[in-house]
Amino acid sequence: MKKTGIALLGVGSVGTGVCELLASNNIMPKRAGVKIDIVAACARNVRRARRRLGGTKVPVYADWRQAIAAPGCDIVVELMGGLDDALACAREVLGQGKPLVTANKALLATHGAELLELARARGAGIHYEAAVAGCIPAIRTVRDALAGDQIIAATGILNGTCNYIMTQMAQQNRNFDEALALASELGYAEAEPSLDIDGWDAAHKTAILAWLACGLPLGMEKMTVQGIRGATLADRDCAAEFGYVVKLLAQVKDHGRRGIETQVGPGLIAQDHPLAAVNDNLNGLLLDTKYAGELLLVGAGAGALPTASAVVADIIEAVREGPPPLSFGGKAVAKHCGRINSGSQAYLRVSVIDAKGVLASISRILAAAGMSIEAIFQQESHSGEEVDVAILLHELEWKDLLQAMRKIARLKQVTQPPTAMPIVIPHRSKQ
Amino acid sequence: MKKTGIALLGVGSVGTGVCELLASNNIMPKRAGVKIDIVAACARNVRRARRRLGGTKVPVYADWRQAIAAPGCDIVVELMGGLDDALACAREVLGQGKPLVTANKALLATHGAELLELARARGAGIHYEAAVAGCIPAIRTVRDALAGDQIIAATGILNGTCNYIMTQMAQQNRNFDEALALASELGYAEAEPSLDIDGWDAAHKTAILAWLACGLPLGMEKMTVQGIRGATLADRDCAAEFGYVVKLLAQVKDHGRRGIETQVGPGLIAQDHPLAAVNDNLNGLLLDTKYAGELLLVGAGAGALPTASAVVADIIEAVREGPPPLSFGGKAVAKHCGRINSGSQAYLRVSVIDAKGVLASISRILAAAGMSIEAIFQQESHSGEEVDVAILLHELEWKDLLQAMRKIARLKQVTQPPTAMPIVIPHRSKQ
Repeated sequence: MKKTGIALLGVGSVGTGVCELLASNNIMPKRAGVKIDIVAACARNVRRARRRLGGTKVPVYADWRQAIAAPGCDIVVELMGGLDDALACAREVLGQGKPLVTANKALLATHGAELLELARARGAGIHYEAAVAGCIPAIRTVRDALAGDQIIAATGILNGTCNYIMTQMAQQNRNFDEALALASELGYAEAEPSLDIDGWDAAHKTAILAWLACGLPLGMEKMTVQGIRGATLADRDCAAEFGYVVKLLAQVKDHGRRGIETQVGPGLIAQDHPLAAVNDNLNGLLLDTKYAGELLLVGAGAGALPTASAVVADIIEAVREGPPPLSFGGKAVAKHCGRINSGSQAYLRVSVIDAKGVLASISRILAAAGMSIEAIFQQESHSGEEVDVAILLHELEWKDLLQAMRKIARLKQVTQPPTAMPIVIPHRSKQ
Repeated sequence: MKKTGIALLGVGSVGTGVCELLASNNIMPKRAGVKIDIVAACARNVRRARRRLGGTKVPVYADWRQAIAAPGCDIVVELMGGLDDALACAREVLGQGKPLVTANKALLATHGAELLELARARGAGIHYEAAVAGCIPAIRTVRDALAGDQIIAATGILNGTCNYIMTQMAQQNRNFDEALALASELGYAEAEPSLDIDGWDAAHKTAILAWLACGLPLGMEKMTVQGIRGATLADRDCAAEFGYVVKLLAQVKDHGRRGIETQVGPGLIAQDHPLAAVNDNLNGLLLDTKYAGELLLVGAGAGALPTASAVVADIIEAVREGPPPLSFGGKAVAKHCGRINSGSQAYLRVSVIDAKGVLASISRILAAAGMSIEAIFQQESHSGEEVDVAILLHELEWKDLLQAMRKIARLKQVTQPPTAMPIVIPHRSKQ
């Protein structure tokens, strides 16, 4: 049987998962037609890495340069994370014309254009299924299965930490801080969780999807990114009154000549839509295509073994086929346009004292800005008490809503700045 | 830009969809890096095919041999359906070492082993994403994305006609005949619907998945196949009482050394499982893997354009990569074992007169056969009236249940032969 040697850069949880999978999966070599051996590894903590590699004779280096220079290294698997070393390493590996397997979404989102061009020039492959949504075949589906189609929109739950927190809030009545604390306790959130909960991890994945699906140049410029730090049980309750759930959603939308919109932020999904059932730390990706209709993919978006499964599939891809196809021949073709949700419906919540008196003022402001109300929900209120008024608005321009919200915030009965979210997946009209 | 010529065999709804997609998708050549031209077509009704091809100058033949011999034909796309011509054609095309794209699940399920061996020997590719679950990337996910993993079980809603009927029964209170009539009216069911509703279409797809996922030799022998003709509103109601929905389910289960079990038939899914939300004529595939956990894919399982999208993706695959990888190196490796659901929970419904009196007898028969009852539901009954008793049973051997059912059928208060279904996706234990 054909053998392939890999240099494993990074022996953290995913790297250890790759070792475990390679050591324990008897079926894989039969399926893949190839036997994969780790010929060298690189880790900051060399001693710990040796232990994790299970006492094999694999040489472990502190310097990735030594690892990729090891004899018999056919493919480099970069799981170091971070940007500096990862970038230098990717340049070196692709420059040598060697295949690179990476799960590094930040690297691809920020330096992907350069690396893809280098890969194309040297005939090397970059394989990065594990960079977007773990073991969900997001990359292969967009790149291969929909190669003959056209992706009109992609809506994703791409961060398991945030989805876990939002699920805890929605189902277990925990507030944001409690849900975050629980996520940390269970290992779903990092000690420093801001990359996840401020939306940047999802944004990196969104950039990669936007490139692959619509040909948008890789990069983080112009992307509207908002996390879930402001998530409240009040919004959960008001959204539920209208039959919606709140999720952190990544969106890519093709507006044809107007360009591609990308956005990450909290948004509403109709409760009965299958994407709303993607809970806990699962990820989900909904692809709206011109010919194939809607496709939904759901699975584990992170975790050592699921991510390792995607990494090993990429190693096999590198063995089987040489460089995988580059979307749009490696050249990005679309232009980036402003904030998504022009034309989408929106949800607005205003905390007020004396709801009766203020409703007319809010309605007037919205009407004057050209927005029309689809539904209003207000809590039962006693005079002088603070209550929430929640409003569903018909299709609107987001900037008009922001302007109206500033006016609403100045009303004397309004106690806090209003919150607004797009309705990303509205209720389907009844048959 | 690189050009590829295809011979399009079959200009029915999917073939016409392929033409439409190729003519109207401006993005596709950019994504795929290739321009695809139809250089010849074959159709039983040549005149109608010319009209459907939009009056292009493409030569249309009644004989597929002439179409594949056309100058500039790089790839053959077989959408004729049926077995005889399709088999002769596949042998000829692969024998010439040419790539074959096909949506013919019956052909692959019954003659796949021979054709895959021929393809391997001649270095030709067979591309058949469209044969299983339309545009859902079932083939690519199992073959490529999970190449490094191990598939423990696959559970699929693979027939859109049946799923539409079961959804109508579940949600619209239609009985089987009414739901089938509506499906026919809407074009979801064929004039002769038995291939769909007797489970054979799903069974063909199951055979292909079992080969690709677990290495089971292609073929229909030993597969337990049951359709939905016996579906009743009584089972719908009793299943709902326990929190389940009834679907036509395809199952592949890897029992390790005991072999692979394959089965198609009605089964119960917990109402809150995402697969239960795959309704109408959608298809869904749930893959349970050793490392990546559960993966769910949902989308259009049929229809002209969704299937055409999968066909064009396969054409692009043929252009890009040459022969796609054959799972298990083309050689099937697993053995087929008997009926699935040994060890699964089951649902049993018995129609009786005088429920009170007969319950003890039924319980005794089940207990004597080593089965234990998890829950019982019985309709309110008036003396002398026929009522349904529904029983959930803990893990059991299916053959024991069948034997017990024969004994139960002989009880004098039992009015009809009992019905039983496996509980394919039980309720998850609460957190």
